[in-house]
Amino acid sequence: MLSNHIQNGIGMASLAWSRLPGTEEAEVHDEADLASTSCGNGVESLDYEVIENYAYREEQAQRGKLFIGFYVAMKWFLALLIGIGTGFAAIFINIAVENFAGWKFSATFSIIQTSYLAGFVVYILFNLVLVFSSVFIITQFAPAAAGSGIPEIKGYLNGVDAPGILLFRTLIGKILGSIGSVGGGLALGKEGPLVHTGACIASLLGQGGSTKYHLRSRWLQVFQSERDRRDLVTCGCAAGVAAAFRAPVGGVLFALEEVTSWWRSQLMWRVFFTSAVVAVVVRTAMAWCGSGKCGHFGSGGFIIWDISGGQEDYSFEELLPMAFIGVIGGLLGALFNQLTLYITRWRRQYLHKKGNRVKIIEVCLVSLISSAISFGLPLLRKCSPCPESEVNSGIECPRPPGMYGNYVRFYCAKDNEYNDLATIFFNTQDDAIRNLFSAKTFHEYSAQSLLTFLVMFYTLAVVTFGTAVPAGQFVPGIMIGSTYGRLVGMFVVNFYKKLNIEEGTYALLGAASFLGGSMRMTVSLCVIMVEITNNLTLLPLIMLVLLISKAVGDAFNEGLYEMQAQLRGIPLLESRPKYHMRNMAAKEACRNQKVVYFPRVVKVAEVVSVLRSSKHNGFPVVQGNRETLVIGLILRSHLLVLLQSKVDFQHSPLPSDIRGGSIPIRHNFSEFVKPVSSKGLSIDKIYLSPDDIEMYIDLAPFLNPSPYIVPEDMSLTKVYNLFRQLGLRHIFVVPRPSRLIGLITRKDLLIEENEDPATMELQSTSVRPHRRDRRVLGRDSEAEHPLLNGLLVQD
Amino acid sequence: MLSNHIQNGIGMASLAWSRLPGTEEAEVHDEADLASTSCGNGVESLDYEVIENYAYREEQAQRGKLFIGFYVAMKWFLALLIGIGTGFAAIFINIAVENFAGWKFSATFSIIQTSYLAGFVVYILFNLVLVFSSVFIITQFAPAAAGSGIPEIKGYLNGVDAPGILLFRTLIGKILGSIGSVGGGLALGKEGPLVHTGACIASLLGQGGSTKYHLRSRWLQVFQSERDRRDLVTCGCAAGVAAAFRAPVGGVLFALEEVTSWWRSQLMWRVFFTSAVVAVVVRTAMAWCGSGKCGHFGSGGFIIWDISGGQEDYSFEELLPMAFIGVIGGLLGALFNQLTLYITRWRRQYLHKKGNRVKIIEVCLVSLISSAISFGLPLLRKCSPCPESEVNSGIECPRPPGMYGNYVRFYCAKDNEYNDLATIFFNTQDDAIRNLFSAKTFHEYSAQSLLTFLVMFYTLAVVTFGTAVPAGQFVPGIMIGSTYGRLVGMFVVNFYKKLNIEEGTYALLGAASFLGGSMRMTVSLCVIMVEITNNLTLLPLIMLVLLISKAVGDAFNEGLYEMQAQLRGIPLLESRPKYHMRNMAAKEACRNQKVVYFPRVVKVAEVVSVLRSSKHNGFPVVQGNRETLVIGLILRSHLLVLLQSKVDFQHSPLPSDIRGGSIPIRHNFSEFVKPVSSKGLSIDKIYLSPDDIEMYIDLAPFLNPSPYIVPEDMSLTKVYNLFRQLGLRHIFVVPRPSRLIGLITRKDLLIEENEDPATMELQSTSVRPHRRDRRVLGRDSEAEHPLLNGLLVQD
Repeated sequence: MLSNHIQNGIGMASLAWSRLPGTEEAEVHDEADLASTSCGNGVESLDYEVIENYAYREEQAQRGKLFIGFYVAMKWFLALLIGIGTGFAAIFINIAVENFAGWKFSATFSIIQTSYLAGFVVYILFNLVLVFSSVFIITQFAPAAAGSGIPEIKGYLNGVDAPGILLFRTLIGKILGSIGSVGGGLALGKEGPLVHTGACIASLLGQGGSTKYHLRSRWLQVFQSERDRRDLVTCGCAAGVAAAFRAPVGGVLFALEEVTSWWRSQLMWRVFFTSAVVAVVVRTAMAWCGSGKCGHFGSGGFIIWDISGGQEDYSFEELLPMAFIGVIGGLLGALFNQLTLYITRWRRQYLHKKGNRVKIIEVCLVSLISSAISFGLPLLRKCSPCPESEVNSGIECPRPPGMYGNYVRFYCAKDNEYNDLATIFFNTQDDAIRNLFSAKTFHEYSAQSLLTFLVMFYTLAVVTFGTAVPAGQFVPGIMIGSTYGRLVGMFVVNFYKKLNIEEGTYALLGAASFLGGSMRMTVSLCVIMVEITNNLTLLPLIMLVLLISKAVGDAFNEGLYEMQAQLRGIPLLESRPKYHMRNMAAKEACRNQKVVYFPRVVKVAEVVSVLRSSKHNGFPVVQGNRETLVIGLILRSHLLVLLQSKVDFQHSPLPSDIRGGSIPIRHNFSEFVKPVSSKGLSIDKIYLSPDDIEMYIDLAPFLNPSPYIVPEDMSLTKVYNLFRQLGLRHIFVVPRPSRLIGLITRKDLLIEENEDPATMELQSTSVRPHRRDRRVLGRDSEAEHPLLNGLLVQD
Repeated sequence: MLSNHIQNGIGMASLAWSRLPGTEEAEVHDEADLASTSCGNGVESLDYEVIENYAYREEQAQRGKLFIGFYVAMKWFLALLIGIGTGFAAIFINIAVENFAGWKFSATFSIIQTSYLAGFVVYILFNLVLVFSSVFIITQFAPAAAGSGIPEIKGYLNGVDAPGILLFRTLIGKILGSIGSVGGGLALGKEGPLVHTGACIASLLGQGGSTKYHLRSRWLQVFQSERDRRDLVTCGCAAGVAAAFRAPVGGVLFALEEVTSWWRSQLMWRVFFTSAVVAVVVRTAMAWCGSGKCGHFGSGGFIIWDISGGQEDYSFEELLPMAFIGVIGGLLGALFNQLTLYITRWRRQYLHKKGNRVKIIEVCLVSLISSAISFGLPLLRKCSPCPESEVNSGIECPRPPGMYGNYVRFYCAKDNEYNDLATIFFNTQDDAIRNLFSAKTFHEYSAQSLLTFLVMFYTLAVVTFGTAVPAGQFVPGIMIGSTYGRLVGMFVVNFYKKLNIEEGTYALLGAASFLGGSMRMTVSLCVIMVEITNNLTLLPLIMLVLLISKAVGDAFNEGLYEMQAQLRGIPLLESRPKYHMRNMAAKEACRNQKVVYFPRVVKVAEVVSVLRSSKHNGFPVVQGNRETLVIGLILRSHLLVLLQSKVDFQHSPLPSDIRGGSIPIRHNFSEFVKPVSSKGLSIDKIYLSPDDIEMYIDLAPFLNPSPYIVPEDMSLTKVYNLFRQLGLRHIFVVPRPSRLIGLITRKDLLIEENEDPATMELQSTSVRPHRRDRRVLGRDSEAEHPLLNGLLVQD
């Protein structure tokens, strides 16, 4: 009787289990409790729903449809806010960087009219101050903001919450740090950090602001489940890419292909909306800046490096050199990944352990070297005479110093000469790329200059990678790639003299090939390349080059982000199971585990001792007198909350609902929600008096009544797929069943909502005892027939 | 002892279970056995893997890595073939359509110089012959080729295999039928059918050719699992879109967003490759045709309706009229879906039941009406004088009849007049769209003409939809949308006189809005619109319009394809569970089921009687004397194969492996592979002698030893997600477990492949008792160090 009663209780729990405040899309992963394992740095996130069903149950029944509407509207409103926020952050970074760089170059150029040495010193100092400010902010204030942040975000969306990555201080550090490091002329970009920035904005908005800085708004706090937060962060990533490259479709695809681990088709639509908002915001701001209100910023259009005036057509003879570019991209990209892996590992193991001072000195040294090379090397280069310009080409030669554009005059003797190395090296990265991509500038650069630049910049990019500043790899990758692309283009122009070939086209393909070879993205990169250059006719060529470079790169190592994630201790679950898993059964994966069970009503002392002695994040809960039954899973973090709050302690070892009355609701659900990017509670920090220790807790209201289960001899490949595709955190491995309740097929899941009127009623009532009794009776009567009845009734 | 032995056997079976010939990506859905339910028209597909493990086991062990390499290479080779095949099919259809239409218009134009009546008759007859040939082919030869085919392909990829959709005859019917129906001037497009064509090509290549027409190649038959076939069909869909719109990225996104139900990130890369191949093939063929070798075909470039010369910028005042276009699109699109639903339902219930003759007459009638309207209405329209043309605009007015372009001269009194209605109505659809999209043609059309065209064409499109010819809805949608778009554009031009507004831009937005309102696609449609018009600057506007039109449309009904799929009895499993499922437990879904079990060794008579009396597609298999154990699932289709072949019948009621020796391999695995698009075997067609009936079958080698299981009181929402996300066909509902073998967490699944050298060896050996023991030892000693130790070292 007791057992039966409890069974009912559990049945109810599991029924109510999925009645969330999140509704429109809340169904998809009920146990989408992304969380890290016990791997030190990551702290487990918790699945909010577990609690919800008990406490919100009544509330929900009243709120009903109204709350759902509010919830859905809030999701869209937040998507809008994320778009606007990320758009403004991007604009702010861009304006700041362009202005700092602009002042720097104007000052330097005006000083070198009198003395090159003084100009050199000013240039170096300017860079040093900017870079120092960046590294100072990062090391002192926001250590999690170093690097591009994409591996960490990828990890977060895969289920590993590295500490600090989504905090308000990280956001601020990322924005200010990128301005310093990019404005300071290091060989890195601001695009990767913008993805992280977008994710931070999304996460902060999702939790209603920063807790620490008392910037929370209560009415924004509707999103407390991990799934909702993850969705928002996905939107944020897409917004970041959309803002960084002004490529809204590319942003959606980047989020889809590169960042997320669990994609839901409903999400696409909202991510798309966020990207569109970003595009509108960025475009509006740029239009406003176009009239010169933003200082040095404002020359670029919505398309960053427009090459639509370039090559319109291509012939078959060109495919071979283009394929060659793909191969180079694959090789250099794989080499880049490998070198940065070694150098980052070395940094982490030796250099960065020595403290922040070493980090600061390191970055300042890199800045000095970068400045010296970018200023000094063009000095050594002999100037070239300007080409005979056509009247209407719109290309001026030489440019007056301090202005954007091709054919920069730098340390030249004659008036109509330009310095080709300075044109790409002694310039902002955006302008350098524009110059490399530019059409109608045949042989603007000598092969010698391009090679010099390639070698030096490649080395600088490798060395700079992994220093303690926010650093993206897109722009350096584009610069490296477009250099050798243009080099190949020069040879092709010489070789196929009669064809209408633009060197800029080859530079674009080179850029695509290097990014493909290093980051191993496909569709998203392709779309981003098209969107940033506004040239659709080259699409099949970009695809070809990407295919080759990715294939070549894959032959050597993994993608940049995967390798970096691994190095940083972010254990990403790949989308495919390892090959050897097909030879293993589920039980082999958990062979040496000693399963620690909790009884339904457990003594506090026992909980404490188990939590102290084991590191597991989840514990099965059993109950029953003669026959035990596994009734669910309780999370470590929930137990800690229960221990800390103490309100659920009881003196009786009997379940609370049996002692009469319903389960009292004493908890506010937000107590169970782990703040993003924090370590959560620890058992050592909870003080319990000797009296407390002697009391009991009824775990039933707090457990997940039906985690996914697999039979013990299921292939580990299948288990992996289940785990990975549903985004689970715990799977119970159970013995082979001895009987079945039934089989579920497609037909059983195609129940129409209005099929029987009783079902409709079910939705609005949550407690419906007599219906359930009927069902119980039904099952009882079934039990009288032997199990294999079906088999016996044969003719 | 017996039980133990068997248990081992099962353990091995489940271990070997996933050792497929498919390897690179074969892991993802082990039980990705897509199949229909018992819903009449659909026939169940089978999961090949079930058998494989026993028969291929030895073979695989020998083949090893070599076969894997071959298998992966074959996948890429097939992707290449699909790309080439679809590209050529598209080129063939395009050339044929353009030539038929070209001849038709030239003939008509040359005749109307003398008599409009004779021209009218010739025009009508020409159309009638083309349309008749199309409907004749469809009704007599390939009934499955009618319609767009996209709902059916969507169903196939969702798991419902409608009969006949992927046959060779369907492919031929689709290609020839589209030529007739599009060339014959009906209000439909050739783009939807091209998606179906691509899918057919992919499916036929995947099974190594057509069985019926003896076009099979043995060495192409490596892809016999449902998953591989589905992947190929996905590639084919993307190739179809890429070829139809010359939009490779759009193709990938269409396959991702609209068609597939289970997307795997590995697939993206291959789908992308296929699209790139299509792009290259189409581009090459068009370049070849450009020199006039393909008759009337060849004027278009790689971008279908290039509007890159159009509006470059937009101002904020324009956002309101653009939002208005979105609203109109949503309303008209939803209305279109609803009207076509009613009309198709009526057709299916009354008209098409009366046989093929009625279908033919119906289509011919529609053709007559379409011809009469498109010829007759422009006759009623007064001609307008040509605008004063600029010298360099490249726009000629009036055009000589029979040529492409704007300002068609038709039934005009004076020489410098043109007929605006004829320009869009009495023209091929591609030219009409190009004219509607055209820039620098202010007020080419009067509002009256546009309205007339809108009403007439909308009606024609609704009436034509659902007739027995291949019919796509993209081009009609674009025509309808661009008409009202241009209409709005005209008003905007009048209203904001000073702004630089092109009516063609509004036409483009109108087209996007109607497609968004009807098909409810988002990202893919957006990319397709950009790719077909080569205008990236309008991207944010297209996004805005799509957002609005989809939202408006969603307020009324579902998308076109979903509604049509529902109507055709294709029960698509949506990506989210129904709302009421959250109140149901798993056992409620299978409440009225009586589970029919088979024992491991079963009498043939019993199998026959169960198969006769029940309609289930899968049966659990149990074994054991005192204690029963569910040892797996056997599929109906596999049982039928076993009954038909009889080779596995045995006299003894004991399992074969107990009687000594290993399980003999008597089957060729291809026997178990259900041919695509067929009904498969039926129990009524299998003859068994009285002797056969008395024999036994040991089912162990043929069963799926570990289907996914759920506890009985798991929320149905969770069950649905499991079913949907993993693409399952059967889930066992089991009682709550009484104990656990263990818990699987992320940590347990992060086993490195090269963690111990023994693992590598494991891959090539299938029977390895002592090897496994060593591993056990290895893991024991490891257990002292936590697995993720290395990862924990953080600074």
